[in-house]
Amino acid sequence: MIYFDNSATTKPYKEVLDSFVKVSSDFFGNPSSLHGLGVQAEKLLTQARTQIANLLGVKTSEIYFTSGGTESNNLAIKGSAILNKNRGRHLILSSVEHPSVRGAMEQLGKLGFDITYLPADQHGRVNVEDVKASIQKNTILVSVMHVNNEVGTIQPISEIGGLLSQYPNILFHVDAVQAVGKVPLNLLENHVDLCSFSAHKFHGLKGTGALFIREGVRLDPLLSGGNQEWKVRSGTENVAGAVAMAKALRMTTENSLSGLERMKGVQSLLRKGLSKIDGLTINTPLEHAAPHILNFSIKGVKAEVLIHTLEQKGIYLSTTSACSSKKQLPSQTLLAMGVPDDLADSAFRISLSYDNTVDEANKVIVAIEEAAKQLRKVMS
Amino acid sequence: MIYFDNSATTKPYKEVLDSFVKVSSDFFGNPSSLHGLGVQAEKLLTQARTQIANLLGVKTSEIYFTSGGTESNNLAIKGSAILNKNRGRHLILSSVEHPSVRGAMEQLGKLGFDITYLPADQHGRVNVEDVKASIQKNTILVSVMHVNNEVGTIQPISEIGGLLSQYPNILFHVDAVQAVGKVPLNLLENHVDLCSFSAHKFHGLKGTGALFIREGVRLDPLLSGGNQEWKVRSGTENVAGAVAMAKALRMTTENSLSGLERMKGVQSLLRKGLSKIDGLTINTPLEHAAPHILNFSIKGVKAEVLIHTLEQKGIYLSTTSACSSKKQLPSQTLLAMGVPDDLADSAFRISLSYDNTVDEANKVIVAIEEAAKQLRKVMS
Repeated sequence: MIYFDNSATTKPYKEVLDSFVKVSSDFFGNPSSLHGLGVQAEKLLTQARTQIANLLGVKTSEIYFTSGGTESNNLAIKGSAILNKNRGRHLILSSVEHPSVRGAMEQLGKLGFDITYLPADQHGRVNVEDVKASIQKNTILVSVMHVNNEVGTIQPISEIGGLLSQYPNILFHVDAVQAVGKVPLNLLENHVDLCSFSAHKFHGLKGTGALFIREGVRLDPLLSGGNQEWKVRSGTENVAGAVAMAKALRMTTENSLSGLERMKGVQSLLRKGLSKIDGLTINTPLEHAAPHILNFSIKGVKAEVLIHTLEQKGIYLSTTSACSSKKQLPSQTLLAMGVPDDLADSAFRISLSYDNTVDEANKVIVAIEEAAKQLRKVMS
Repeated sequence: MIYFDNSATTKPYKEVLDSFVKVSSDFFGNPSSLHGLGVQAEKLLTQARTQIANLLGVKTSEIYFTSGGTESNNLAIKGSAILNKNRGRHLILSSVEHPSVRGAMEQLGKLGFDITYLPADQHGRVNVEDVKASIQKNTILVSVMHVNNEVGTIQPISEIGGLLSQYPNILFHVDAVQAVGKVPLNLLENHVDLCSFSAHKFHGLKGTGALFIREGVRLDPLLSGGNQEWKVRSGTENVAGAVAMAKALRMTTENSLSGLERMKGVQSLLRKGLSKIDGLTINTPLEHAAPHILNFSIKGVKAEVLIHTLEQKGIYLSTTSACSSKKQLPSQTLLAMGVPDDLADSAFRISLSYDNTVDEANKVIVAIEEAAKQLRKVMS
């Protein structure tokens, strides 16, 4: 099997699963319980929080556990908008955000908030000047992802953060779900107030994630109740999941030391090999692009058909993002980049992990070339 | 170790953890992916959903996976209130609800909803006549738990459901988190529209839960995004967690056949033995009580101190609920029942699983008697 769909989800590391099982069976107490089993569980939770905070270069008290990237994005956006609604009701996001950012914003739109979508250039990149021009007196939140999930474009977080540091009333949320382990981000230096993470995108477990909330930033909770996570996210803590997430982040960070270079090599080989294929256009930009994603279109080839043809050869890749793949709509990101409809309709995404090899890349190039030729023959 | 704090959390069954590991490692695909790994994962998710639906006597399409009981309660309450806000803004709940129900309601209160708290009698029970008297023209939701988490009182769900069946505009939400495996509930016959479940309360995993949403009932999502779970709960599905939850529910249902009777025997023995202890009052009612919870107060004994004294003998029980234990506030449920402040302040909760034995109960009775005597001596 050649698994080239790591932006949809990654295979959990064995050590991550081992940690999960160990904590679930040996330290199963509820962290809110006063007795020893609760205290043990709470200690493990705090350890996991500290590990994650250290790896991200922030404070332990700035890491909040959630059920994943979608919850983190919804909590950051709705939680800050609802809490600050009396200060202003204008929100800014890029037009290439993940559906969980766009969806959260659109729900707020129905509750009376105003929303500005930032345009993206032909590389899928937001311009900091557009951010500046969009700011109004009543703007309370700007949300721009770090790495786009469909084409891999890296957004100018540093420039936007620098700009927003001059507007103390505007919170800056960054969806870093696709960035972890691939494109480092200094949250403090870049003036990020809120940042979302999802463990299953870096070999952790589904159903676990985190939100960085800069010290001093307050949010209205999405989930009220027992007041866990400093009252911001109630619900019995998934201690084993948090420990597993910390392990996954540590291993990813360690593996990135050698893995990132290898990944860049594989990506570059794929780009070179694929671009020689007749009718194939690479959509992922050369500059400001993450090392693990390569998006391309093949004129005249129906995306879903190619996916299934490749699958018969044991090759797994994706049409666009997993979240959008069943909607059968052309990629929002590609449309925002000005890619013509027919090419946006026949777009594919390869997404790598550190474990993918040059050998796999070579096999995939050959397989795509053959499949494209064959399919185009059938279709014409 | 004698673990008598099963309402805080249960130890996951070994088979449940085995299922989780198997699915996480062998079927790690994202259910939204179009390729085979995604299809496999989606099949497992649907199987888990169907198993749970069958065990609860409802349709597969009526089971929605969430991250736990707190999310299920928040989604049911906020999701229905926000969606129906133009039809009415009056909500009814009992005054003995879990903090996640009360908290969700209070957040809605700040957004302009009106809330009526139903009183509870000296047994912690709501009266259906009070529900009837509270209904207004603009009432859109009634939320009453099935089994109280602090004293174990079973609420008159059947009577309330019967009443509300005459009000088609009012949704009926039931928090069944403490009921599963202990007090069966027929959701359809009792006219329940929304019902919350949490897997770690029946030997499943933390971070997993479900919400029953009766066919035809619509909710505004708390988590927007990739439109998973029929657009009601976005986020990459925790497939392994869902499969583990289905396994836990199946095992719990099977084990209940012999386990429930044993549990009732242990509870009855505890009640008899504990009520002989000087200054001890049993707060859990004799009638309409779940078989796994026994709440009692000991005059003049500080709850936290007794918890730690018992812990030294390897006995784990709880002051009130785990969610409230750190707030150091007297139990809301006991106050609503009219228990005097000093007794509410010195309240304890024993909560059983099927695995607890008569032998354990006898040991705990002796240990509590000794500890109470000793502590009262020290304090006077």
